[in-house]
Formats: sequence, structure tokens, C-alpha cells
Amino acid sequence: MTAAKFIVIEGLEGAGKSTAIAICQQFLAQHNIDFVNVREPGGTPIAEALRTIVKDNHDEEIASETELLLMYAARSQLLHNVIRPALAKGQWVLGDRHDLSSQAYQGGGREIATSTLASLGDIVLQGLKPDLTIYLDIDPAVGLARAKGRGELDRIEQQALSFFERTRARYLELANSDERIKTVNAAQSMELVHQDIVTVLEQFVKSNP
Amino acid sequence: MTAAKFIVIEGLEGAGKSTAIAICQQFLAQHNIDFVNVREPGGTPIAEALRTIVKDNHDEEIASETELLLMYAARSQLLHNVIRPALAKGQWVLGDRHDLSSQAYQGGGREIATSTLASLGDIVLQGLKPDLTIYLDIDPAVGLARAKGRGELDRIEQQALSFFERTRARYLELANSDERIKTVNAAQSMELVHQDIVTVLEQFVKSNP
Ligand SMILES: Nc1ncnc2c1ncn2[C@@H]1O[C@H](COP(=O)(O)OP(=O)(O)O)[C@@H](O)[C@H]1O
Ligand SMILES: Nc1ncnc2c1ncn2[C@@H]1O[C@H](COP(=O)(O)OP(=O)(O)O)[C@@H](O)[C@H]1O
Ligand SMILES: [Mg+2]
Ligand SMILES: [Mg+2]
Repeated sequence: MTAAKFIVIEGLEGAGKSTAIAICQQFLAQHNIDFVNVREPGGTPIAEALRTIVKDNHDEEIASETELLLMYAARSQLLHNVIRPALAKGQWVLGDRHDLSSQAYQGGGREIATSTLASLGDIVLQGLKPDLTIYLDIDPAVGLARAKGRGELDRIEQQALSFFERTRARYLELANSDERIKTVNAAQSMELVHQDIVTVLEQFVKSNP
Repeated sequence: MTAAKFIVIEGLEGAGKSTAIAICQQFLAQHNIDFVNVREPGGTPIAEALRTIVKDNHDEEIASETELLLMYAARSQLLHNVIRPALAKGQWVLGDRHDLSSQAYQGGGREIATSTLASLGDIVLQGLKPDLTIYLDIDPAVGLARAKGRGELDRIEQQALSFFERTRARYLELANSDERIKTVNAAQSMELVHQDIVTVLEQFVKSNP
């Protein structure tokens, strides 16, 4: 492996991202690859404070544009203080969500213009793209039923099913137009999902010797 | 007066904005104009939480882009929940800082590209512009000496003098190219500044019958 890689797990609530992260961690450890874990929004004290603002219920309405800017502010902070320094030191980065989530949730779910997302991407990402994204595709009703098992739903999880259907449609559209995004059918049994993720990781490592 | 107006007071720390706000409040009350006061960043619970993040000192560095996005997130929230609803109801809005501060501090001080500020302005302001901005021009060394009299300096106030000199230069440049921005020499005595502000307000009211 020549340079440190940035791998991201994406998908709706309850798709199985945390489960997939554990699989990736095991895979990277087995390959003696040094890596750091991050999650979005979050991953630095300020970004975690922004995560709380975005996920909590408030007495005031959060404008779609505010939500969007807070997501990118958190991402900016994580990139600046964690992701870029880790990659520069040769550590891989394993992310629970990244920019694709904004494109799917804010672009698809909230129907914010693609050009707006592109402007923010230019400002914050400055050309950095994950080397591999594993998108766990799930019917939102199934994912939300799984997520409910974890307890109370947060402000985003409380959105209407139609919001998540638009989000999923945008995820699929973007995954199908970018060869660095691999779609895994997350409706399968845990074992089959596990196998598919390991296959994707093995192919990635083989093609990046 | 046909429609509610949006008046903003701008300037460096210690320029005399809070003092000018009091003068404007008195003027509007004398003219029986119903108005609301706002300040930026801030003015809603979420925007005030963002203000605290931006002004506090943290163990982690705040990236310039993060600071920029937090300023616009706070502005978005204030516009959505306070400024637009007030203007729609016919109430005037009196603002302690607004978008010109970002253009001067983030654009001039932090040297963020004008095109970046324009993108964020498009997303957040959606065409709304103050009807009148009073820019209080002061030498940053004089302003900071006045501000120090108030107590501890916050994270922004602790920036180098060169930061504030770039900010002032951008303020002046923008004020000189926009007839809705009136510059007042804030180095004068309080009485003369007071007179100049009242003159600007009287001319504004006269030209908006
Ligand atoms: N393929 C699967 N089939 C059934 N349940 C699953 C599957 N993958 C994950 N789960 C369960 O669904 C819940 C949500 O999974 P999690 O990994 O926390 O999702 P996410 O992090 O995407 O919200 C957990 O209880 C998890 O054990
Ligand atoms: N024209 C002036 N000359 C001298 N001192 C002033 C003048 N205007 C304001 N001050 C004083 O300077 C300090 C900062 O003024 P303030 O209105 O709080 O500024 P800002 O809100 O722009 O930071 C206050 O102590 C105020 O009384
Ligand atoms: Mg999870
Ligand atoms: Mg003040």
C-alpha cells in the first residue's frame, strides 16, 4: 500500500453502519494497517457540540440551510484537525458517514440544490475524496425499525418516511455514478452483509497494492 | 414609511456599535417606529450557542472555514426565525452586525476568497439586504483600547492588529462601493458621533417617506 487511505461507511439509520465499522476495523487490524476512527457529524470537541445541536430537538425550528451549514462546519473541523493530519502521517481513516451523507440527506431528503452542495463541497473538502465508500442500502422502513430497537429517535430520525425515501433514492443515484462507491444490500442477513463487506475490502486492497 | 426597514450598525470592536444602537433605539422610539433588536452572531438560542463556540478559546484550533460556516449558520437561523418574520409583520429590525461583518472579518481579516463569501451569501441571505448600514470607522488600535476597558478579550478580539487592519480596509472598500452603507468617523467625540448618526437616520427617514 503506497499511501494512507480514507474509507467511509454510509447508509440510512439502522442500515448497519456501526456493525460494518466493526467488520472494517477487524479487517484493517488483520492486515496490520494503522488507522483512526471518525464519525460525522462529530469527531472533535467542537464538531461533537455541533452534532448535539443538529440531533437534539429544540424549541426553535432549524432552517434547512442552518442544518446544512452546521454539517459542513463539523466536517471542516474534522478534516482540519483529524482526517488530514492522520492521512499526512500515513494513518488510514475509517469514517462513519462523510460528505455523501450531506448529499443524500440535505440534497435528497431536504431537497437542497445540488449546486449549493457543490459550493460547500468546494469550500470544505478542497478536493479530498474518500478512496472507498461502502454504501449499505436498506429500505428506510426496515432501517428505522432496526434503529428503534436502540431507543428514542433523534430529531433527524423523526423525519417522515418520505424524507428517507428521497434520501435513499439520492444515495443510490450517487453510488451508481461513482466507481469509488460500492453498494451492499443491507437487507440481507448479517452473515451475507459481512461477507459482501469483506469482499469489497479485499478487492480494494488488491487493487491498491 | 411604506415597508419595515432593516438597519444595521457595523464596525470593529470598540468602534461604538452598542453606543450607536442606543442612539438608533431612541431615534426609532421618537418616531413611533415598532422595531426589534438583534445581534450577530446570535439572536436565537441556537445562534447564541454558535456565538459562544466562535468567541470562546478552545483546546482545538478552529479552521477559518469552520468559523465562516458557523457565522453563516447563525445568520441563517436569525434570518429564518427572527429577521424575516419581523419584517413580514411590519416591524423594523435594528441589527448589531450582519453580513458585512463576515465580508470584512472573514473576507478581509482571514483572507477568505470573495467568491466563497458570495456563495454563502447566496445560500443564506437569499437576496435580503439591509436598507441602511451605518459603518463606524475606527483605527483598530483605538477600538481595541476602548474594548479592553470592558474586560477580557475574546478569541476574535485576541487576533493580531494586522488582522483588524485588513478587516478595516475591507470595511472601507465595501462601504465606499455601496450607497446603502454610510461611514461615520468613530474617532470623533461621542457628541459628534451621536450627531452624525442622527443626521444619517434623518436623511434615511426623509428619503423613505
Ligand atoms: N444485516 C442485518 N440484519 C438484521 N439486523 C441488523 C443487520 N445489520 C445490523 N443490524 C442490527 O440493526 C441495528 C442497527 O445497526 P447499526 O449497525 O447500529 O446501524 P447504523 O449504525 O447504520 O444505524 C443493530 O441492532 C444491529 O445489530
Ligand atoms: N466616540 C467615542 N469616543 C470615546 N469612547 C467611546 C466612543 N464611542 C464609544 N466609546 C466607548 O468605547 C467603549 C466601546 O464602545 P461600544 O459601544 O461598546 O463598542 P462596540 O459595541 O462597537 O464594541 C465603551 O466604553 C464606550 O463607552
Ligand atoms: Mg451507527
Ligand atoms: Mg457592542
